[in-house]
Parts: sequence; C-alpha cells; structure tokens
Amino acid sequence: MFKQRIVIDGLQYCNWNREYFQSLKDSGVTAVHATIVYHENARETLSRFAEWNLRFEQHADLIMPIYSVADIEVAKVQNKVGFLFGAQNCSPIEDEIGLVEVMRRQGLMIMQLTYNNQSLLATGCYEQHDAGVTRFGRQVIEEMNRVGMIIDMSHSAERSTLETIDLSARPICISHANPTFAHDALRNKSNIVLKALTQRGGLLGFSLYPFHLPNGSQCTLDDFCQMVARAAELVGVEHLGIGSDLCLNQPQHVLEWMRNGRWSKVMDYGEGSQGNAGWPDALPWFCGSGGMENIYNGLLNIGFSEQEAGRILGDNWFEFLKQGLESKA
Amino acid sequence: MFKQRIVIDGLQYCNWNREYFQSLKDSGVTAVHATIVYHENARETLSRFAEWNLRFEQHADLIMPIYSVADIEVAKVQNKVGFLFGAQNCSPIEDEIGLVEVMRRQGLMIMQLTYNNQSLLATGCYEQHDAGVTRFGRQVIEEMNRVGMIIDMSHSAERSTLETIDLSARPICISHANPTFAHDALRNKSNIVLKALTQRGGLLGFSLYPFHLPNGSQCTLDDFCQMVARAAELVGVEHLGIGSDLCLNQPQHVLEWMRNGRWSKVMDYGEGSQGNAGWPDALPWFCGSGGMENIYNGLLNIGFSEQEAGRILGDNWFEFLKQGLESKA
Repeated sequence: MFKQRIVIDGLQYCNWNREYFQSLKDSGVTAVHATIVYHENARETLSRFAEWNLRFEQHADLIMPIYSVADIEVAKVQNKVGFLFGAQNCSPIEDEIGLVEVMRRQGLMIMQLTYNNQSLLATGCYEQHDAGVTRFGRQVIEEMNRVGMIIDMSHSAERSTLETIDLSARPICISHANPTFAHDALRNKSNIVLKALTQRGGLLGFSLYPFHLPNGSQCTLDDFCQMVARAAELVGVEHLGIGSDLCLNQPQHVLEWMRNGRWSKVMDYGEGSQGNAGWPDALPWFCGSGGMENIYNGLLNIGFSEQEAGRILGDNWFEFLKQGLESKA
Repeated sequence: MFKQRIVIDGLQYCNWNREYFQSLKDSGVTAVHATIVYHENARETLSRFAEWNLRFEQHADLIMPIYSVADIEVAKVQNKVGFLFGAQNCSPIEDEIGLVEVMRRQGLMIMQLTYNNQSLLATGCYEQHDAGVTRFGRQVIEEMNRVGMIIDMSHSAERSTLETIDLSARPICISHANPTFAHDALRNKSNIVLKALTQRGGLLGFSLYPFHLPNGSQCTLDDFCQMVARAAELVGVEHLGIGSDLCLNQPQHVLEWMRNGRWSKVMDYGEGSQGNAGWPDALPWFCGSGGMENIYNGLLNIGFSEQEAGRILGDNWFEFLKQGLESKA
C-alpha cells in the first residue's frame, strides 16, 4: 500500500547525484522540497537553479522539477522523483521586494524568512532578542501571499513566527522542526506556536535531524512515532507531515557554510559544539531507502490508520502545497 | 479590417508608462517584443523583470506578459497589449551557459548574440574584423535552440550572422534592421544575409528607426513600402515583419547607455555623430497611434493583398514565434 501513496519529504539538502536520485526513487518518495540555497544572494541563486536544470536534463529518467502541484501527480504517474525548491534564508531577494515574484517565477516555491540569525525580514531562533517582523518583512509576507510563495518559519524565533502566522493571509509552514515537548531546543517549537500555526491552516513537518530529536541519534522509531501521536492529539493529524532535514553525504564544509555563511569570523557550531562539530550520526531506521516506509509502518504500529499515516507521509503536504502555491498574481 | 488583425511589433524600447500603453492599445498593436536590457548583467536583468512585473500589476487592464504564443491570442481576445521580452546583448547570461535556461524561464524569449561590439559569443556590426561565432557562442546557440530562446542578429556583423544562421538548428531573426539595398549602413543587411536568413526559415523585421531608412527622417511611407515590396520579391513575403525600433520619449541618457554602456570612456555616437548626437526626428507617419495602420494601408496601396499585408504586420511574426519559442528542453 505504501508504494501507491504520494510521499512528500518536506525538506532535504543531500549531496545530489544520480546514485542518490535512484535511491530516492526506490524509496517511494514522490516529491522532495529541496533546499536550493542557504545564504546565496540573487545572482548566486541563479547559478544554483542552473545546476538543478542540468541535473534535470542529465537525469530526466529519474527526476523532474515541480512548478505546480499538478507536477507532483505527473511525477507519481511517471514514477519519477519531483523536486520543488526552497530557500532557507531570504538572501535570494536581497533588499528588493520585486525579487519575490522574480524568484517565484524561477521556481522558488518556499522561503524561510530567517535562518537562525536576524534577517531583513524577521528574527532567527538563535538571536537573544526577537523584535518580530520588520517593515520590509511585512511587505514581503504580503508579496509572498500574492504570488504564491510559501512562508517557512522553521529557523525563526517565536515572536517573529507568531507575528508571521498572524500577518500572513495564507497558511504558513514549519517545514522541518519538532515540538519542544519532545525535545527542548531553540530550533524546536512550543505548543503555543504549534497551536497558532495549525489553527490558521499551517503545517508542521517533523524533522529527522538528530539534534531535533529526543535522545538525538539514539531516538528510536517508536520514540519518533510517539512524538507524532502526541502532536496529532494536540493539533490534529491533518496539520502534520515529514520534513526530514536529511543532509546525506555532505562534506563538513557544507555544514560550515550552513552555520557560518559569510557572517562569522569565528566558527559557529549551530546545534553542535566545539567538541561535537560534525554531522550527527544518522538514525539507523532513517538512513537508507526504507526510511519513509519505516515511518509509515511505525505510525500504523502505534495505532494510526492507513489514511492517517498516508496523510502524514504526503497527503497533508500535497493539500498544503496546493493551496499555498496557487498564484493570486 | 486592420483592427481585427494580430499586429506584432518586433522591437520597441519606449519610455514605458500608462499613457503609452493606452496609446499602444488604441493603435491596434496586439504584442510587442520589448527590449528589457542593453548591457545589464544577470543581476541587473532581474531588476528589469521586477520593474515589468510591477507594470503588469499596475496596468493589468491594458497590458499582459507573453510567456507563450497562446498568450498572444489571449491578449487579442482580451483587447490588451502583450509584451514579450528580449535582450539586445548577451550580457544577461554573462559567461555562464546555464543562465540561458534560467533567463528563458524568467521570460527572456529573444536574445541578440551581440550589440554592435564583439561579445563573448560573436562579433558586432561596428567591429573592424569579424571572427565569427566563438567557442562559447556555439554552445549558447545550441542551448538557445534547446530551450526555445530565439536568436536575434540585428546588431551583428555579417560573417557572425551567416555562421549563426548555419549553426542554428532553428530559424533565427533579424528583428529590426533594413536591407542595404534600400540604405547602405553597417546596421543594415546585405542580400546575401537576407537570402541565407530566409532560406532557413528566418524572419526580417523592418526598422522604422530613421538611421536605418533611405532619406532618414524624410523617408516617406511610400519609400518604406517600396523597400518592403522589393524585399518581398527577393525573399518572399512570408519572411517579413515589422520591428519598428521605436524608442519614444526616451531621454538622451538612455541613448547614451545604449551606445556606450560601461565599455567606453569617450562618447560613442553609434549611428549618429558628434554634430548629430541626439535622437533622430520621428517619422510623421509613424509617431502616433496610427503608425501600424498607416503601414498596413501603405502596403495595400502599392499592391499587397490584405492577406499579405496582414502577414507583414503580424501573422509572420506569430508563426515565427510559435516555432521559435516551443521548448525542446
């Protein structure tokens, strides 16, 4: 039954190559929200799109771009993995409101307003003080709503997140984070945020990144599924998805680029530390091509119905994207 | 009858504002190939697209973007003026092959390989020596063919133009220039070029820019139509269109940007001269909203049929764009 489902991973940043595309296809994943940039400016973002265009040309038998929700259905029918793109920071629009529509047309479907730090739009989750959404931020939220670019607050601070949920005319997402009730971390989200998010139609994608999980790399499949079950009780199963934050086969310098960009002269360790500066160990039940199916079966084992597990594995993301990407421009 | 036709102007770079959009609509023009950049690099080109997006938002009752040939028919039905975009130089792709597809996706439908000077792709019409299409140029031609971006050689030198016609798997255009048999100028095209162009299915758009015309600003409507008639005898009416090169209400600094970009420390006067450095005087029969209809009637008066005049005023461009913009990517 799993293989017939639309399965959507709400965030990955793997080392993209043919071997991995084949593995993704074998795993039954229909579509992936792939991070295309972390700190790249507008010009650099164009080069990242160019690199993806070449991948689509060279691996057309395995992957395809997602420019509308209908393309996800095409990917399913053609047995390919679809990719839709997001930015983990607002760097691609620089300081120019008009670049929201330009980047949307290029294929940037989702954008975080902040990545850990203060941005021109809002405050990131690692700042000491959260001043909320900025003047530019308010205009960008309105423009993203207009053109159908989805707002993602995974790496944002609480006040900024709550204000954005309130300001946005469309539901927003937290594509990859976990509830603080499962693991208390600056990157995870309070019940207040989760309730506000979902009351406005928003979606939470559960992260499989060990730093976001109870017991880190020792988190069991059952621990993970218990977290999902508790969240479903809190906010309803229809607002939950997966955003694995999978970063397979990336070298250390990529982790350092994510954490430090061009902003830091001293090494910032993000969720790690000087003594634990590398990638965390992968979860044994979510590292090969069986990961999504393991979660599906894990959810069934703790009492979710097939329909509910299917919603969490992809149908909820599908419905959310359908509403979020429709352009009103 | 004129008002029912699809009328396409194959090149303009006017001072775009609501008053002019209204005048264009009144003139019966269905679609315009608008120059979006002369010398702007990739990043700057994005800002020009952003400016156009704002125009489309603010003047949605008058104008609309053309992203496919079907949009031209939509513009006709909705009684709006459609705009499709072209670059007069290859500056938007800088030195990066992948930017061809990126810019095409953004809405750059047509690109000149050179603007007067040597470019990274080929030689411009004002250079002393024409070394033909470069190594990068060959790859760009192939890539433009693949993604459906139309090659325009209006400002290119002869050898480069002939080589491009030969190398390109799709027909190319000379969107705005005239035959040298009518007026001998470096910017105009020899019979050799016109024959090679059209034998491969290409299109010539006649320019209304006085520097390209016999007798300059004194060129009469009849002179113009006689030139068209002679070209039709030479290459066939099905390969001819209009590319007016209309640059209404542009200040002198825009003319200087076109001519000098960032490449010249001394003032380059292009087709003008130190004693004649400004915009040429407009043609009295092609300056108001009646211009295209005047040409249509002028063509009928010297013996073209309504169908032939209709082809020259828009149907030929429509068919050419239909073939040229179809993506094979």
